[in-house]
Amino acid sequence: MSDQVEEREESCRIEMSETRRWREEIPGIVEALVRSCDGDDAFDHVGPEPISSRESIIRILSMGRRLLFPGYFIPDRLDRINLGYYFGQLATAFFEALSEQITLAVRHDCVRYDRPCSKCRDRGQEAAVAFMRELPRLRLSLGKDVRAAYDGDPAAGGFDEIIFSYPGLFAITVYRIAHELDHLGIPLVPRIMTEHAHSRTGIDIHPSAHIGESFFMDHGTGVVIGATSKIGDRVRIYQGVTLGALSLPKDAVGGLRNRKRHPTIEDDVIIYSGATILGGGTVIGTRSVIGGNVWITESVPPDTRVFTKRPELVVRRPGES
Amino acid sequence: MSDQVEEREESCRIEMSETRRWREEIPGIVEALVRSCDGDDAFDHVGPEPISSRESIIRILSMGRRLLFPGYFIPDRLDRINLGYYFGQLATAFFEALSEQITLAVRHDCVRYDRPCSKCRDRGQEAAVAFMRELPRLRLSLGKDVRAAYDGDPAAGGFDEIIFSYPGLFAITVYRIAHELDHLGIPLVPRIMTEHAHSRTGIDIHPSAHIGESFFMDHGTGVVIGATSKIGDRVRIYQGVTLGALSLPKDAVGGLRNRKRHPTIEDDVIIYSGATILGGGTVIGTRSVIGGNVWITESVPPDTRVFTKRPELVVRRPGES
Amino acid sequence: MSDQVEEREESCRIEMSETRRWREEIPGIVEALVRSCDGDDAFDHVGPEPISSRESIIRILSMGRRLLFPGYFIPDRLDRINLGYYFGQLATAFFEALSEQITLAVRHDCVRYDRPCSKCRDRGQEAAVAFMRELPRLRLSLGKDVRAAYDGDPAAGGFDEIIFSYPGLFAITVYRIAHELDHLGIPLVPRIMTEHAHSRTGIDIHPSAHIGESFFMDHGTGVVIGATSKIGDRVRIYQGVTLGALSLPKDAVGGLRNRKRHPTIEDDVIIYSGATILGGGTVIGTRSVIGGNVWITESVPPDTRVFTKRPELVVRRPGES
Repeated sequence: MSDQVEEREESCRIEMSETRRWREEIPGIVEALVRSCDGDDAFDHVGPEPISSRESIIRILSMGRRLLFPGYFIPDRLDRINLGYYFGQLATAFFEALSEQITLAVRHDCVRYDRPCSKCRDRGQEAAVAFMRELPRLRLSLGKDVRAAYDGDPAAGGFDEIIFSYPGLFAITVYRIAHELDHLGIPLVPRIMTEHAHSRTGIDIHPSAHIGESFFMDHGTGVVIGATSKIGDRVRIYQGVTLGALSLPKDAVGGLRNRKRHPTIEDDVIIYSGATILGGGTVIGTRSVIGGNVWITESVPPDTRVFTKRPELVVRRPGES
Repeated sequence: MSDQVEEREESCRIEMSETRRWREEIPGIVEALVRSCDGDDAFDHVGPEPISSRESIIRILSMGRRLLFPGYFIPDRLDRINLGYYFGQLATAFFEALSEQITLAVRHDCVRYDRPCSKCRDRGQEAAVAFMRELPRLRLSLGKDVRAAYDGDPAAGGFDEIIFSYPGLFAITVYRIAHELDHLGIPLVPRIMTEHAHSRTGIDIHPSAHIGESFFMDHGTGVVIGATSKIGDRVRIYQGVTLGALSLPKDAVGGLRNRKRHPTIEDDVIIYSGATILGGGTVIGTRSVIGGNVWITESVPPDTRVFTKRPELVVRRPGES
Repeated sequence: MSDQVEEREESCRIEMSETRRWREEIPGIVEALVRSCDGDDAFDHVGPEPISSRESIIRILSMGRRLLFPGYFIPDRLDRINLGYYFGQLATAFFEALSEQITLAVRHDCVRYDRPCSKCRDRGQEAAVAFMRELPRLRLSLGKDVRAAYDGDPAAGGFDEIIFSYPGLFAITVYRIAHELDHLGIPLVPRIMTEHAHSRTGIDIHPSAHIGESFFMDHGTGVVIGATSKIGDRVRIYQGVTLGALSLPKDAVGGLRNRKRHPTIEDDVIIYSGATILGGGTVIGTRSVIGGNVWITESVPPDTRVFTKRPELVVRRPGES
């Protein structure tokens, strides 16, 4: 055993002199990387304009959550005395960060795609203020989403459990923020927000989708809600539900970018896990129930239950093939 | 082009004077936010009691993981000499943080819902100690889960790969911690823990579920294990498997909160990807195999293979419609 | 109400003296934890060799992303003047971190499993340089993946939106890095990388899989691509698609570790959401389209559309059972 140790020590001495050899390769690699930015085949952002910061946008979402659910995500105690200071300080920081990111996103479009100047910084602040005026309304809306979660989930221990921990509530909170910004015509930022929520929760909601009040996603992993979906009030969906577009041939994508491609779900609908509902003309009528794993490409009238005739199960006992 | 630049500079000067205008909107927004905390329609935590900290609970899980798998998640070397110091320092920090969060959760219930005083701090420390006494047993249990992963996954390079990187192992580690706390009657904290694991892994296990030894989830994304599920030993499940409750009408949720609603899976069962097993009375018998995408709402005897008669595939060659 | 407050204060005084009692349990717990490291039933890493750091590996991925998409994930402005400094500093830091982690992974195998010395540090640096020489090629490859995403997704607002926010692009970026390291024969590190991406995106790609150019995963949550899969060029897949292995009896896992178990997907194939394709001999022919939720265990010829004969939907109007 000690021969092996000696051998290894000898190897280590040899390694030391070779170390310098490998490091000397780095300058050549750096030059190759610089050259790789010359063409257009790879993507880089090299130029005079600053770019959006995904990190800042994630921080904006964190502040937004603390504005929408005051007291829940901070270490300090909040009471009637310091509530005004809390909101004042948080709202100011939120305004600074959000207007900055909106400005960057708008200016980014402005410089890179040769559009006329849109007074970017003014736009950024105007939009940030317009968004923040909606915060009280968003608080009420999210209050309804919390109650919908409690009403729809026997496993919910209480409202606080839902607010603290339900990924579905995080996803709908981010969606409602992003949707408001999308509605104000802000580019890029809304999608970065919802894809962050997608990463955190497995729930993929496009910011352009329209979702009504009292919306609850139970479990949620794998839910996909497409950009032109329209969902009514008091709708409940389960994990793996897709509101998607009908299949499209590879060369047809361009013409589809602005058409309604995703379904409409009316009020009081329940959609069970794994159901797939496709098509811009597909309407699920009010108070209908869609069973698990159902595949739907045509409209369903109101007050209707739809489930699949379950595939016959094949059951084999021991000895049977 | 230079006219455009001049024009943009002129616009920028105009913007500067408008900046102050938008910022002046903030105080009005702050007042509206303070007022929004008056009613009960939105959710806020404004009051004398401190509240649970999700951030602290996530840190507790990180420390717990380092207690359960010593040496794996630290930058420093661990050996026989410093192993005692390692555990001593980590266990003390863990005790402080965990007893604090349990105390907050218990006190939170105490003040807000008008229950009698439960000597919250004492309860917090008692429960933290009771939990920590189980750590050696949890280490053995997780050892079996690691081996089950190695035995069940041809792609596993070794035990270390599983411990370092398998999301399924992270999810079962968090579940076993949370389940122990749930068993001790601690509110809120267990659910925050498992929903954090859900966010990290796409695996949604309710802390009240009962899961036996040597449990392996391969791939794992989309797995849902409901609150009243009961799983035996040496069970293997794949991605997208749901152990769920039968559908419930919108107004029936309240009465269900304490009944067994989720299935029982006996020892040595394998459940393939996408299978859905529903119902509190549904029992999957020992050594049975449930095929992929199967939908089950009735019990299955032991030693039985169940798979779906696959829907007929429709195959279209070019030129066929 | 004030009697209750007095009672609670009295309880608090009693609690103080019991605090010391619970803390005194900690040394006993620590001893039990140290003893739990004696056997082999639980897993710990106690010994002379340092171990891989998952945290460092995640940081390496972050740096890698900034090398592959320069300018996108940094707060500062990048231009022709500082591009060389940017790459120089980042490439040096990347080399240090990556060679360190490769060395640790290789040495870990070396010491623990009694293999002869492989001049670990030299190997680490050699492999890091070999990887970094591929960075320009990886940039081109990822450029094609970005364009494939834009061409395949009507909801994509532009290239920047994809680079900033698409989880699918993050997953393929990490896979291409990990696959290169796997190809260089590096243990452990590639799997830690792809499982990190799995945690972040819900997309589970084994680093040993072979994936061609212009690969796009839309939505992505729940995708599983097994270790011996082979995917051609210009393939598009949707959420929940599994390229998996046929079911294996519990005792057959050992013999399977090195055989092709996962399917081959040829060029220009589209696989819609929820489809499951299993088996090492299963080939999906070029230009074929696999419909949603299809379950395939046999090969499909080129230019073929395959979809399931949808299960009959059972539709119940009010009053019908």
